Amino acid sequence: MPLNPADASFEAILRAGLPEDILRPLAPRYLEEPRGRYVGQGGLLALPHDTEQVATLIRAAARHRVAIIPYGGGTGLVGGQVLPEGPAPLILSLERMNAIRAIYPEENVLVAEAGAILADVQNAAAGADRLFPLSLAAEGSARIGGNLATNAGGTGVLRYGNARDLCLGLEAVLPDGQIWQGLTRLRKNNTGYDLRHLLIGAEGTLGVITAAALKLYPQPAASGTALLVVESPQAALKLLSLARTQFGEMVSAFELIHRQGLDFLSEVLPDIRQPFPAPPEWSVLIELGTSGGIDPSAALEQLFATALGADLLSDGLIAQNSQQAQDFWHLREMIPEANRLIGSISSHDISLPLGAIPDFIAAAPGRIAALGDFRINCFGHLGDGNLHYNVFPPQGRSRDAYPGLGATIKRAVHDLVQEMGGSFSAEHGVGRLKTGDLERYGDPAKLSAMRAIKAALDPQGIMNPGAVLRG
Amino acid sequence: MPLNPADASFEAILRAGLPEDILRPLAPRYLEEPRGRYVGQGGLLALPHDTEQVATLIRAAARHRVAIIPYGGGTGLVGGQVLPEGPAPLILSLERMNAIRAIYPEENVLVAEAGAILADVQNAAAGADRLFPLSLAAEGSARIGGNLATNAGGTGVLRYGNARDLCLGLEAVLPDGQIWQGLTRLRKNNTGYDLRHLLIGAEGTLGVITAAALKLYPQPAASGTALLVVESPQAALKLLSLARTQFGEMVSAFELIHRQGLDFLSEVLPDIRQPFPAPPEWSVLIELGTSGGIDPSAALEQLFATALGADLLSDGLIAQNSQQAQDFWHLREMIPEANRLIGSISSHDISLPLGAIPDFIAAAPGRIAALGDFRINCFGHLGDGNLHYNVFPPQGRSRDAYPGLGATIKRAVHDLVQEMGGSFSAEHGVGRLKTGDLERYGDPAKLSAMRAIKAALDPQGIMNPGAVLRG
Repeated sequence: MPLNPADASFEAILRAGLPEDILRPLAPRYLEEPRGRYVGQGGLLALPHDTEQVATLIRAAARHRVAIIPYGGGTGLVGGQVLPEGPAPLILSLERMNAIRAIYPEENVLVAEAGAILADVQNAAAGADRLFPLSLAAEGSARIGGNLATNAGGTGVLRYGNARDLCLGLEAVLPDGQIWQGLTRLRKNNTGYDLRHLLIGAEGTLGVITAAALKLYPQPAASGTALLVVESPQAALKLLSLARTQFGEMVSAFELIHRQGLDFLSEVLPDIRQPFPAPPEWSVLIELGTSGGIDPSAALEQLFATALGADLLSDGLIAQNSQQAQDFWHLREMIPEANRLIGSISSHDISLPLGAIPDFIAAAPGRIAALGDFRINCFGHLGDGNLHYNVFPPQGRSRDAYPGLGATIKRAVHDLVQEMGGSFSAEHGVGRLKTGDLERYGDPAKLSAMRAIKAALDPQGIMNPGAVLRG
Repeated sequence: MPLNPADASFEAILRAGLPEDILRPLAPRYLEEPRGRYVGQGGLLALPHDTEQVATLIRAAARHRVAIIPYGGGTGLVGGQVLPEGPAPLILSLERMNAIRAIYPEENVLVAEAGAILADVQNAAAGADRLFPLSLAAEGSARIGGNLATNAGGTGVLRYGNARDLCLGLEAVLPDGQIWQGLTRLRKNNTGYDLRHLLIGAEGTLGVITAAALKLYPQPAASGTALLVVESPQAALKLLSLARTQFGEMVSAFELIHRQGLDFLSEVLPDIRQPFPAPPEWSVLIELGTSGGIDPSAALEQLFATALGADLLSDGLIAQNSQQAQDFWHLREMIPEANRLIGSISSHDISLPLGAIPDFIAAAPGRIAALGDFRINCFGHLGDGNLHYNVFPPQGRSRDAYPGLGATIKRAVHDLVQEMGGSFSAEHGVGRLKTGDLERYGDPAKLSAMRAIKAALDPQGIMNPGAVLRG
């Protein structure tokens, strides 16, 4: 049965049961997404103040069969936050529910409402001399509810895990309007099916997260950063293994950078200072966060010497102060911006078993070259096996010259990823952009279980319809 | 509709479709569980060699509506491994599927079949100079499939997480006989609902895990162990916080021991050497696993000095060699055996928010004293907020003198745990023993979601019926 639109009569129903300021005029930004691939259609916009109001809204939507689009910071990259077609939805933004409800430094726990901006969560933790380690480019506007709904990744995953690994408990409203009071601060709790992990990564299709109990960590006492020139991706992996053998969990980040990314920076962001006289073919940014009195610079020097002796690297820079460390990170973090300015034909957020990465990096250019003359920027979170593998036109040409080729390239890349046991979506999720990939590459038993779960928890299909699973 | 028994006609059907040696005579051990609370009823015993045979068995059971009891090492403590009533089941033991399929040291990944014994997985990892950190008393007979199905905890959770946190991917057979090929070795993979985390902790009620890709870690370069006498549980928590601030993730274990446990050891296992001349009221066993060249003994001495200066402790012993470290651990690990020999009236595997533990330890004895004169042994994985809080008769009396009182005590303890935001099952699961607790203390929205998921994935209710959710 098709859904009903969030029309004037539905609006009247909502207005009758809720305070006046809950429904707000629908600003255009709620219908946009960062890469401009989708434009959402209008509908109603609700900005609830508390969980009870979220439940009231969802109960009304369930009763009247109206689609709900949960809205966090709007920073998702796969179109999960906009509904481009079908009956007009109720857009439910959690932005007013942005409180840090409590912080328990001795427990290493922080409880935040879903609308809290990620950077605010980080800052609240830092204010209690603790670390909330989820860190990603959009942290200044992404909201923690969306980070959890999409199981966000970022640069801290190697040491601290994905968003799901940083969550102890959830409060959420299920598709029938029931409030699940699951906001436990427990480290061990084996009392039935793990609804938390089911909602995390479900991208708002099984309910709306309203608050979360989050894991904090002690702040490392000191940190050190280095940019190391490696001989090859294989050498980078050996360097990672060496670093973890020497320093265990103190290895906080391990990012791969290809020459193409540095060339792009020179091309479109020439003010960014290049650290090496000639951009190296492969380099890695490594960060150590140490405790126990370990001097991170000395540790990095020791690692450098060992790796040099093992022929894993040929050059490198160890940050001598925090400004230099920030510069190294800035270099890494501006690569996506350079990509955006160049304009990719097709971009891929893929992951692979760590051991398969050198083979992938060796094999993929051939598959792409078979389709034309392109530039490839391969970079990302090597420690997690997560590459952002993006394909661009040759210098001087625009992606507009390659209409329709993006899908062909994407297919070639994702096919190879699948052959090598990898994933077509490492950290961005499925959203609306990758529902076809999920159908193509997803395990049939898993897909049928997913459909059964969706039908069981959201039998009317009102929660973020068309995301993750097509109707 | 009631299930059918695994009778002679069902046996004939199975024999027709499977190799001869799959069905085996049913030895009594398959019908027992460690605490003797339940006796399983007979039925058929199947010992498949591979995942296809598991699928064949489950498809037959689904077609003929026969209950399946997945069987790992049989070490579970909540009766999840035996079916005491209802039509005779098909007992499906994974013991023949015990291969370590592959090990990838550079990826820190090991792939094991579900029937692999936990200690064998640990040893295989150690053989590749890696650590598989799941560690628990039953590791010599528990099997990894059961550890995952119950989301086992143990002593390594503080640093490395629960069993679910150590699993990258699963292969499993769903209740309709479909094989889910989810054996990924990926660290990031956001492609739909996380079926892995749904099966982990579902205690065999949503499918049968047949293999797992497990996370390994670098072996800490050195480790050190100390037994420290603390003033109070509050002081123990402050010591934990201090240790983690100083040494971060290098704090590998933090176990609480009460005087009662040491007294029990003197009473029933007098050959075990007591480390202190007089058993201290509260002590903690701390282990540091260090890297980066940190000397763990020096680190423990530094921690001791700081904690002494902060009045957190009054005495302590730092192991001077590995034998002494083993002795400390042996002391801790024999407490459950002493408990068994004394015979508890009621035992509780509870968890609490860390900050609530001192209040719980202060309040619980009063609730129990209101019910009679008992001895309490409170010990456990303090770093995880997980207490084993067990109640015993006074010296010289047997638990048999208190018929029926166990349930009353359990209720009093679990009520208090619930009031303080804790869990009635930290690491043992629900099984059949705690279905009533789950109904009483479980969140209603979560319970209704669990029932909907169970009905969606196992509409006939053949998978481990009566475990976790009563019919």
